[in-house]
Amino acid sequence: MSRIFNFGAGPATLPLEVLEEVRDEFLDYPFDGKQMGMSIIEMSHRSKAYDAVNEQTEADMKELLGLGDDYQVLFMQGGATTQFSMVPLNFLKAGRTADYILTGTWSEKALAEAKKVGDTHVAASGKDSNYARLPQPKEIQLSENPVYIHLTTNNTIFGTQWRDIAPLNLNPGKHLLVADMSSDILSHPFKADDYGLIYAGAQKNIGPAGLTVVIMRRELAEDPDPTLPIMLQYKTFTKHKSLYNTPPVFAVYIMGKVLKWIKKNGGLAGMAAHNEAKAKLIYDIIDSHPDFYKGHATPDSRSLMNITFRLPNEELEAEFVKQAQAAGMSGLKGHRSVGGLRASIYNGMPKAGCEALARFMLEFMNNNA
Amino acid sequence: MSRIFNFGAGPATLPLEVLEEVRDEFLDYPFDGKQMGMSIIEMSHRSKAYDAVNEQTEADMKELLGLGDDYQVLFMQGGATTQFSMVPLNFLKAGRTADYILTGTWSEKALAEAKKVGDTHVAASGKDSNYARLPQPKEIQLSENPVYIHLTTNNTIFGTQWRDIAPLNLNPGKHLLVADMSSDILSHPFKADDYGLIYAGAQKNIGPAGLTVVIMRRELAEDPDPTLPIMLQYKTFTKHKSLYNTPPVFAVYIMGKVLKWIKKNGGLAGMAAHNEAKAKLIYDIIDSHPDFYKGHATPDSRSLMNITFRLPNEELEAEFVKQAQAAGMSGLKGHRSVGGLRASIYNGMPKAGCEALARFMLEFMNNNA
Repeated sequence: MSRIFNFGAGPATLPLEVLEEVRDEFLDYPFDGKQMGMSIIEMSHRSKAYDAVNEQTEADMKELLGLGDDYQVLFMQGGATTQFSMVPLNFLKAGRTADYILTGTWSEKALAEAKKVGDTHVAASGKDSNYARLPQPKEIQLSENPVYIHLTTNNTIFGTQWRDIAPLNLNPGKHLLVADMSSDILSHPFKADDYGLIYAGAQKNIGPAGLTVVIMRRELAEDPDPTLPIMLQYKTFTKHKSLYNTPPVFAVYIMGKVLKWIKKNGGLAGMAAHNEAKAKLIYDIIDSHPDFYKGHATPDSRSLMNITFRLPNEELEAEFVKQAQAAGMSGLKGHRSVGGLRASIYNGMPKAGCEALARFMLEFMNNNA
Repeated sequence: MSRIFNFGAGPATLPLEVLEEVRDEFLDYPFDGKQMGMSIIEMSHRSKAYDAVNEQTEADMKELLGLGDDYQVLFMQGGATTQFSMVPLNFLKAGRTADYILTGTWSEKALAEAKKVGDTHVAASGKDSNYARLPQPKEIQLSENPVYIHLTTNNTIFGTQWRDIAPLNLNPGKHLLVADMSSDILSHPFKADDYGLIYAGAQKNIGPAGLTVVIMRRELAEDPDPTLPIMLQYKTFTKHKSLYNTPPVFAVYIMGKVLKWIKKNGGLAGMAAHNEAKAKLIYDIIDSHPDFYKGHATPDSRSLMNITFRLPNEELEAEFVKQAQAAGMSGLKGHRSVGGLRASIYNGMPKAGCEALARFMLEFMNNNA
């Protein structure tokens, strides 16, 4: 097997040892010292064996995030896009206003769903810069008494990231903060209890597609509007520990293995060191060769997860993607909203992948500058 | 590896050769004569390799169901429970009435979600018999001009099934028929174009949990209420071929393999023969020994997928489950609404499993009668 370095934005590369473990036990799942005689994907979600996966995965997630009993981790479906609707449907009551900070395409889509439900306010927007720059603290203008403030911590398409929201003065003690962390959850330590609700599609840092992880302050789920579809009420998930109906068993099981891999590799602090070292390899090339490589995100807004950059012209960009693929690196084409190249380097991307890409960038520049 | 016969109601047993194929290519997915250097679960849903899975799986599903271009197969998430809401939210307009035929717990839950949306009418109900018997044609009283008629073709919990709806005189040419086929889709040939919309959670006859398959007449998706959450509009899925956001890639991929396995084994007619032979083995034991084994479903309503039966007392039932497990047969405990035993024998259950269970039933009876 010749493994490629997959720089795709998601579904994304996963740790090889996790994949190997899954393969090795795929036909016969081991539990409690016994072989179950069936695959994890054939197993009842009401079985003791799956219940252990469900419990342990929640416990490990809370441990990694430093959260206590006042929080619950939910295993849902439908992607972050379903959360774009669930958040306002559950929290945006008549007469109140929800604040959105726009930092890219996904925040815009979240806002569009909230507008269907009630009153919204754009507290800040980076649209004028084509989302190359995150709003500065002083540019954020909250409404008088927002029912919640929604932000996107990492912007996959544009390559920007808020690693620390303390400077934004969002006053988590007073305001309910809601964040889409689909593309940077578990990539660095952060104060998770600043947030009332965090959601993330799994397919970048957590596991395979088909699972949405929601981390929420338990009390927020109480007292839902009973006319909401049952699967759009958070309470359906908090009350039944994500087992009201059949959960995406396989994806939760892999998430469990990914969390163990993160714990074994230094937890979130370990991931941050790993990700900073990887990103530095690429950003250093961009910064050292500004005539050839032009970063899209401004340096103060740069993401450690998605690195966006342009080349002198589109022909070279196409050639870069093609030659990189031939050299064992895939998924480097940028999103059409930015163009150019994008290297997504989530937790699962090994440092060797970034070293290979950095070498290739130098070589490609020397051959084409 | 010692493979167990898994009689669980779902997630359920899958064909062993499908599981082996998945395991063998899990680390390095082959496409178009090449190895991709990554797992199917790491692959972009915008890649050519996944697009081929998406297209072929839809095509094979339509071929098996004998459907043409006026139908589309959608790959969704959230289980049948999400469809319980989506169906009325998309079709139950103000001033109209939706008819529900109640044949078990799942139809009741579907009705409960429809009641949140608009006017409903119970056209028939088997509740008085604890759903042991399906309503007879003459017991079905439709409302004057139903916007749709909803039915559940197989009732997992109670073990009843409508294999042929022609005698019900539901007039598919005039009325929009909507069916939950979660637990018997693909198990026998039926006139799929009688239905405007069919939905099914995948985890019984189709593949792993985390995928909901919707088969719908294309035109029904047009003209959605724009205020509906985007993920609750069927049009979001028809327009983008289930790729508006990231689909449950792994589950669709396995579904594709299961469909190929069905085609190789005689298609739906092959499955029907296989399933009739298997069910007969168990029902014959029940019918030959009425003093010991009492079927829950009345003979005219029996399901080929879920066989529900009681023993003379609960102690014996518990003992049956325990001894069957020790003999390599799991998942036989009945649902609490019926009690007793339930053998779920979907497509993936080999005939040898039913032979083993039939032998065990005789032996257990001889030891305990």
